[in-house]
Amino acid sequence: MLSKVVARTSARTGLRVSVRSLSASPEVEEAAAPGGAHAQLPYTTPLREMNFVLNEVHNAPEHYKKLGFEDCTPDFLDAINGECARFAQERLAPLYSSGDAEGCKYMPNTDVRTPKGYKEAYEEFSEGGWNGLTVPEEYGGQGMPLSMGVMKSEIIGTANWAWSMYPGLSMGAMNTLILHASDEQKETYLTKLASGQWSGTMCLTEPHCGTDLGQVSTRAEDNGDGSFNVTGTKVYISGGEHDLAENIVHIVLARLPGAPAGTKGISLFLVPKYVPNVEGELDENILGGPKNVTCVGIEDKMGIKSSATSVMGFENSKGWLIGEANDGLEQMFTFMNTARLGTAMQGVCHMERAYQGALPWAMDRASMRSLSGKKYPDDVADKIIVHPDVRKNLLTIKALCEGGRSMIYDAALKADGMINEDKAVRDKCEEELGLHTPTMKAFLTELGCDAAQLGMQVYGGAGFIKDYGMEQIYRDAKISTLYEGTTGVQALDLLGRKIVLDKGVELRKQVQLQISEAFEIGTSQTARNHGLTGHALEIGKLSAQWATTAMRIVAGAASNRDIVGTASTDYLMFSGYISCGYQWLKMMNAAGKALDANPDMEESDRAFYQSKLDTGNFYFNRLLPKAYTHRDMSLKNPDSIMDLKLEGWDLATTLPSDSGDAYAGYKAE
Amino acid sequence: MLSKVVARTSARTGLRVSVRSLSASPEVEEAAAPGGAHAQLPYTTPLREMNFVLNEVHNAPEHYKKLGFEDCTPDFLDAINGECARFAQERLAPLYSSGDAEGCKYMPNTDVRTPKGYKEAYEEFSEGGWNGLTVPEEYGGQGMPLSMGVMKSEIIGTANWAWSMYPGLSMGAMNTLILHASDEQKETYLTKLASGQWSGTMCLTEPHCGTDLGQVSTRAEDNGDGSFNVTGTKVYISGGEHDLAENIVHIVLARLPGAPAGTKGISLFLVPKYVPNVEGELDENILGGPKNVTCVGIEDKMGIKSSATSVMGFENSKGWLIGEANDGLEQMFTFMNTARLGTAMQGVCHMERAYQGALPWAMDRASMRSLSGKKYPDDVADKIIVHPDVRKNLLTIKALCEGGRSMIYDAALKADGMINEDKAVRDKCEEELGLHTPTMKAFLTELGCDAAQLGMQVYGGAGFIKDYGMEQIYRDAKISTLYEGTTGVQALDLLGRKIVLDKGVELRKQVQLQISEAFEIGTSQTARNHGLTGHALEIGKLSAQWATTAMRIVAGAASNRDIVGTASTDYLMFSGYISCGYQWLKMMNAAGKALDANPDMEESDRAFYQSKLDTGNFYFNRLLPKAYTHRDMSLKNPDSIMDLKLEGWDLATTLPSDSGDAYAGYKAE
Repeated sequence: MLSKVVARTSARTGLRVSVRSLSASPEVEEAAAPGGAHAQLPYTTPLREMNFVLNEVHNAPEHYKKLGFEDCTPDFLDAINGECARFAQERLAPLYSSGDAEGCKYMPNTDVRTPKGYKEAYEEFSEGGWNGLTVPEEYGGQGMPLSMGVMKSEIIGTANWAWSMYPGLSMGAMNTLILHASDEQKETYLTKLASGQWSGTMCLTEPHCGTDLGQVSTRAEDNGDGSFNVTGTKVYISGGEHDLAENIVHIVLARLPGAPAGTKGISLFLVPKYVPNVEGELDENILGGPKNVTCVGIEDKMGIKSSATSVMGFENSKGWLIGEANDGLEQMFTFMNTARLGTAMQGVCHMERAYQGALPWAMDRASMRSLSGKKYPDDVADKIIVHPDVRKNLLTIKALCEGGRSMIYDAALKADGMINEDKAVRDKCEEELGLHTPTMKAFLTELGCDAAQLGMQVYGGAGFIKDYGMEQIYRDAKISTLYEGTTGVQALDLLGRKIVLDKGVELRKQVQLQISEAFEIGTSQTARNHGLTGHALEIGKLSAQWATTAMRIVAGAASNRDIVGTASTDYLMFSGYISCGYQWLKMMNAAGKALDANPDMEESDRAFYQSKLDTGNFYFNRLLPKAYTHRDMSLKNPDSIMDLKLEGWDLATTLPSDSGDAYAGYKAE
Repeated sequence: MLSKVVARTSARTGLRVSVRSLSASPEVEEAAAPGGAHAQLPYTTPLREMNFVLNEVHNAPEHYKKLGFEDCTPDFLDAINGECARFAQERLAPLYSSGDAEGCKYMPNTDVRTPKGYKEAYEEFSEGGWNGLTVPEEYGGQGMPLSMGVMKSEIIGTANWAWSMYPGLSMGAMNTLILHASDEQKETYLTKLASGQWSGTMCLTEPHCGTDLGQVSTRAEDNGDGSFNVTGTKVYISGGEHDLAENIVHIVLARLPGAPAGTKGISLFLVPKYVPNVEGELDENILGGPKNVTCVGIEDKMGIKSSATSVMGFENSKGWLIGEANDGLEQMFTFMNTARLGTAMQGVCHMERAYQGALPWAMDRASMRSLSGKKYPDDVADKIIVHPDVRKNLLTIKALCEGGRSMIYDAALKADGMINEDKAVRDKCEEELGLHTPTMKAFLTELGCDAAQLGMQVYGGAGFIKDYGMEQIYRDAKISTLYEGTTGVQALDLLGRKIVLDKGVELRKQVQLQISEAFEIGTSQTARNHGLTGHALEIGKLSAQWATTAMRIVAGAASNRDIVGTASTDYLMFSGYISCGYQWLKMMNAAGKALDANPDMEESDRAFYQSKLDTGNFYFNRLLPKAYTHRDMSLKNPDSIMDLKLEGWDLATTLPSDSGDAYAGYKAE
């Protein structure tokens, strides 16, 4: 089916964007003009790196062939990603700093204006067919596998994360509709979302609850005509209001009258900003009339300032039930899983940006002399890339970024079954992914923040100044550890749900796979040629400990349930370092194999593979050992976390004891 | 001598501020009005905590008595700090958010306008005599010990770090003048700085060099009349221009004609914004005339936005040599040491603010149920303070904040000899402090950033929103790891200068002291009563490893100098965790002793001391183990950091190879 799309457009890329010429629009040029807000950070999509991970590490073409996507050859993937990269580099990256400086504006008539150039970029993106890349062809999409959407997200997200959230949330809405909406709903809404004519949101959080969705109080009342009236307030709605698209389709969690309390009484509704007419279109009367949903305001945030984080007011807003009543949270899981994968990717996006931002500075700034003697003897000082601490900062970012990318691509290929119409395929896919999603989300976003701060650190004081651009990465990155479930929430999901409740079934499978693969790599000629045996041993050992540590925690939790909580974040980070190490072993193996297979390769190729081996050695030498600390912490006695009495928290700092109302209603057992 | 000051003013506090009534000024009220920029974070000075550390842990009154400050009794210290707290809470804290939102403005005539309320607060601070708190009485100061200035810095810095930088930099200038200026210079400038009528700056950094001051290129030419013409550009000058004081006294590093290259050819100059007349005063003609130094612009920064970070243009600016020619960098060391101590304190300030900001939210926000059963059975959900991960985040901030404060007070008391007129006393003081300054600066500021991010984490998504105030702490905190020498620079100072060059003399003294004290505590009845023996053993063991690890690094560095660099940041963090643990042992010992000595103490006192023991147990259980990871990392083979070839850095991400000019001039050995 893919071949049709390819034939329809360019033979080279299969996407319509390929045939459009990319002359810079006046809007982009104006917004990104020098003398405008701030200097530009460089951004080049690491296509070679992506190809290496896809083809040489994860054998993606083989995987796609199995799924029936025979055309997804390495050349094809490179061409698609290359087109996306061209768009991202030429259209989105130039708006990165200017969009941050300008931010979104809340306008009269509850409109929201996005920064200069955003609308034009969105239109071009839509015209190129990128919104519908992974949507079935019958709804106007390109019908490509989900994993290719993940790469698209990486490319546009690294270029400009805040901009990429608009199509990102549309994707969430589309995936939800693909799986759970009626054919009629799909016909009306999915096609418009796939073309980008309309955009979408996910409305979960309310002022009093985010993580604890059982507290959702937005109500929906049956109008008796198939429609419902939805009333309530939703907060932190990304892309809740903006000027990029003609209409906005909100997917809303709400409660029907008489629904069971808690999470079992939540239903899913489709509530459009403007309600289309019977033909499913918006005429001028509708567009000129009142909105069905209004934006009450937008948040002033630390970062991702050009993403409109909206407070949405629903007041008898007309909506339609998606799927079965009271099945809302269950239906939301697919979105949540893909959203967590996308947020994990955000960590990698910020790592890549931080690396690309910091490296040129390290190669250009001259300060002090190398400890082991002058390296630039004719200059007044050495470039700071010679200093061990600067190298360590850069290598840390590099090793986490490349390892993180490999983790995500591995998961993304697994996730290709996630949007399958067959529930059995989806369930199997969710089982396989379940273990990895919370780990990747929390581990990679926490380390994305670390990478952003290490990137600033390379700049010294200049890292703190807006003109140099590094501080924006730091500000943008932080949201990733907070939304889509905080790090603490992911950790509980991993240990409580994906391991304790699962009785470790998936964990044990993954451990078995890793030990087996480590054995194979560790005993190979490649390992002997490139010194990988020690690393393979380490991964084998840690994989076993991954299971035994869980065993010990689960055993302890039988007598003290709090142990799951006191152990969870460290256990998650432990899992993350192991998983990333497993990916590094695979990458080093692939690099070693390539070097061995072709001793006459070009110098630049040799340097590429050698850099992989060097960076991998750094990971095993300097980053993987952190796994042991987290393991030890996860096994510590829980008492030092649970002992402190309620009155002990604030006395030490003489906070007024009425600083919260925690004392009211507390009944310790 | 202190008694005179006390008699002169209020018997209770010894400071003039005590007798002024603190009715809120209209400016403060307006700036901090609800509906203004952003909501207010609470701030209460932790006086009880401060008193505990000063009196019960470090026996400060005994120390002050030895120095001749007999009046520095616990009551007196509490009263002084209490007055400062009142000012900080009522005048500075309300301007924290509004000052950030408004920022500084660069005005016509190269003036800089500080945010609303800043000038009034500065005037009140000056009238209260706080600028001159530690300046000798003969120059209009209060003649108190330096350490009391550190506590003052903590109080005003926690309330509003950015505001506190104006008097903070004045303090740096004053300390430099006290030690190195002529009597005439002191008479003219120091008195005006002590009164706050004028403020001061330290002008070190230039566009092409910060850390590497040997590259300083600002020139000074002798006018033959005792004055010099100074020409050059200085950047990142905190308080370089503002509207708080009538005049600004710049202490400037510059180079005389024919001076030796590098750091040995740098001299120190005093260059006022307005040159006073022969009476040392500014008449209207002078104030209306041209400036001697002009502010070329101010930086747009991620945080501390209300501190004017200025680019200063010197163009034949009239100045005077301070001390001997070519002795500038040496003279600057005192400033650098106190500035690093002050920046270390900044870490603690942000920890305290993060804790006070996050705790009320944790006690008020209801989400999910405790893993070990409902704790607020009548509510829809439990307060999040019951969740282990939230507790762990808060306890981490609390343990680092209280441990960090104790580290700094310990050092501050040692630093009382730093401004002594006797060079022998100063040198001894520098020797003793030298080991601690870089460790505290880097360790506490890095963890200050961590604390700020954990504070946001407690808030979930709300942590990212400006209205809640937590994100400002995160933005403000980051500069502390960058200025006054980055973390990497501190680490090289510690390992290269304070240990390798010192041949470990001071390190071994400190190790001996800690082992000895741990032995005494570990074998005491208090230890048996409160379970401290294991902690004491741990400190004894780690103290020994602190020395042996250094020994191994130094031995390795003999054959590979890069090892000092590859080991340094981890060795510094290793040192930090040990030092903080040593303080926690002392604090737990003091708390245990207090509990044992008075079994009938009030419930709130008992809770205070018990909270100390619980928090200390948390430190030993969950934070101190990180010391071992850093120890192991510091002993790793340096190769994985040094191996990557120049061409290996950017090939992996296909960055254009002209991204920096690192390739030009590189001559690897």
